[in-house]
Amino acid sequence: MTTSNYHVAVVGATGAVGQQMLKTLEERNFPIGKLTLLSSKRSAGKEITFKGETYIVQEATPESFEGVHVALFSAGGSVSKALAPEAVKRGAIVVDNTSAFRMDADVPLVVPEVNEEDLRNHNGIIANPNCSTIQMVVALEPIRKQYGLTKVVVSTYQAVSGAGLEAIEEMKSQTQSILNEEEFTPEILPVGGDKKHYQIAFNAVPQIDLFQENGYTFEEMKMINETKKIMHMESLEVAATCVRLPIETGHSESVYIETEKSGATVEELKGLLQTAPGVTLQDDPANQVYPMAADCVGKEDVFVGRIRRDLDRDNGYHMWVVSDNLIKGAAWNSVQIAESLVKLQLLS
Amino acid sequence: MTTSNYHVAVVGATGAVGQQMLKTLEERNFPIGKLTLLSSKRSAGKEITFKGETYIVQEATPESFEGVHVALFSAGGSVSKALAPEAVKRGAIVVDNTSAFRMDADVPLVVPEVNEEDLRNHNGIIANPNCSTIQMVVALEPIRKQYGLTKVVVSTYQAVSGAGLEAIEEMKSQTQSILNEEEFTPEILPVGGDKKHYQIAFNAVPQIDLFQENGYTFEEMKMINETKKIMHMESLEVAATCVRLPIETGHSESVYIETEKSGATVEELKGLLQTAPGVTLQDDPANQVYPMAADCVGKEDVFVGRIRRDLDRDNGYHMWVVSDNLIKGAAWNSVQIAESLVKLQLLS
Repeated sequence: MTTSNYHVAVVGATGAVGQQMLKTLEERNFPIGKLTLLSSKRSAGKEITFKGETYIVQEATPESFEGVHVALFSAGGSVSKALAPEAVKRGAIVVDNTSAFRMDADVPLVVPEVNEEDLRNHNGIIANPNCSTIQMVVALEPIRKQYGLTKVVVSTYQAVSGAGLEAIEEMKSQTQSILNEEEFTPEILPVGGDKKHYQIAFNAVPQIDLFQENGYTFEEMKMINETKKIMHMESLEVAATCVRLPIETGHSESVYIETEKSGATVEELKGLLQTAPGVTLQDDPANQVYPMAADCVGKEDVFVGRIRRDLDRDNGYHMWVVSDNLIKGAAWNSVQIAESLVKLQLLS
Repeated sequence: MTTSNYHVAVVGATGAVGQQMLKTLEERNFPIGKLTLLSSKRSAGKEITFKGETYIVQEATPESFEGVHVALFSAGGSVSKALAPEAVKRGAIVVDNTSAFRMDADVPLVVPEVNEEDLRNHNGIIANPNCSTIQMVVALEPIRKQYGLTKVVVSTYQAVSGAGLEAIEEMKSQTQSILNEEEFTPEILPVGGDKKHYQIAFNAVPQIDLFQENGYTFEEMKMINETKKIMHMESLEVAATCVRLPIETGHSESVYIETEKSGATVEELKGLLQTAPGVTLQDDPANQVYPMAADCVGKEDVFVGRIRRDLDRDNGYHMWVVSDNLIKGAAWNSVQIAESLVKLQLLS
């Protein structure tokens, strides 16, 4: 097989993440021989341009995956549950960006900077973690490797684009209504499928995804469970509070950690992160240099700054972790998994 | 002395907090015999209406405090440093909303729900804590009393009104510029007096106040040091990450705590907070009930919700604490201190 004849399918091609996937495939010049763009029935028929060529989006069916080498899914959990096994049956490897299979024991959950080798154990489906998990583990892994890790407490500052294009539109139109002192009715956020909807403009909403029995949201449980799985640390203490904010793109995270070995200096942690794969260190308080959501948009890296020692515990540290939730948090991590599959010669 | 003849001075009467102080004094029907409104030279001459009467704001000078019983200061640290001692010299009790005297050993730092009795030890000046500290200690004190407290890790979601009226205007005009796809130049936030200014609209900025040598901002150190002082717990572990967000009013806080005694249930904590002074419990995940910045505006209470057990530690809990930063975070806590002075017969 030459390096330019993979048949790639993108499922959910018209969505916020799907569009970013296509942009990333184009920018990375992924070796595509044939491209199939799929969607729900509702979006089928739309036209999308890729590398100057026009494609018509087709309704995804089991037969759509005949001859496909790798299928990138981002069309919601129910689509993945129905069609990912069909794609695998037809010989495709599925990289699934939904939460449908993430915690399945036989499905690798992969962030290439952390656990690329887990790809070797795939059984057809590979799961792409939740956006807020991905950026955190990229920042934590270099520290874990050197000093070990025992505890993580994270509070997130999440953008609305994680909830889709409709959520972005809702935020913008609500914001304009408030500036104009006009009435409005929240209809989508915090969670499209939940009972109540709340104002997102000029507000902070401590709910992302549905609530579970234990009082945590599903988004929070995703961060907790996925972090343990990706880092292979079942006993790692992880706690999360996930909050939606009036930001279009770019998730930020306030992360408190405790390391196994005590006494690493801030300079040592900065040194580790400066050379870590996928990380850009932005940490110079004297010159007001720190990561911000508005600066990360359109970039692949995870930006880390505000690294400082806890004032009480010798093994405690605080940091601020920012990344484009549609890129490293979704599209780029999925394409990166596809690239790793090529590199590890797992795609054929 | 009858209950209606205190001579009250408000210093910084034209600012965001000063205006809220006047509103609160009016709403609470504080026993005012005479009202003196003071400001910087720049704002002197402005007219302000209080209880239907028009007052002309005067430039604050040492002589302005002759005959004043209680002076509420909120005109910046340098004004307080220069004039609070002059007010005290003339017999006034100063309630200072700046950080000028908060950590002075002979100045009580008071949140009436927590340490009202500290007022008895005043030497003329009483400090009003930082907005983000106040709402947190109101939520923590009922828990500390019953179960003890060993560790607090807080990440804040702070509104721009804490940075004054100009910051609100900057956020609104920037927001409109972005919606219109027009250029803009940040000029005020994150900190008026710092070297660089950043976009606040649709962004999360992890800097409030200036950076200290240890990598923490002054705002973060305020939360850390003030919490220990108000709660009389020098050994309490406190860590803070303070973040400015595009929200006009209402600070939110993601708070992780460890208690001294283990095993309290979430229901027990809810029970404590339900009857705690100054607290409104809003905690019913099944019905999507939790506090939000947009809902707290104009209200005196501290709103607490999303209380849940840490999944790893028996003495760990997470909660979400929201309050109007101009009211309980500033104006109402100051007026409340004045009310406590009356109640404790310390004002004469």
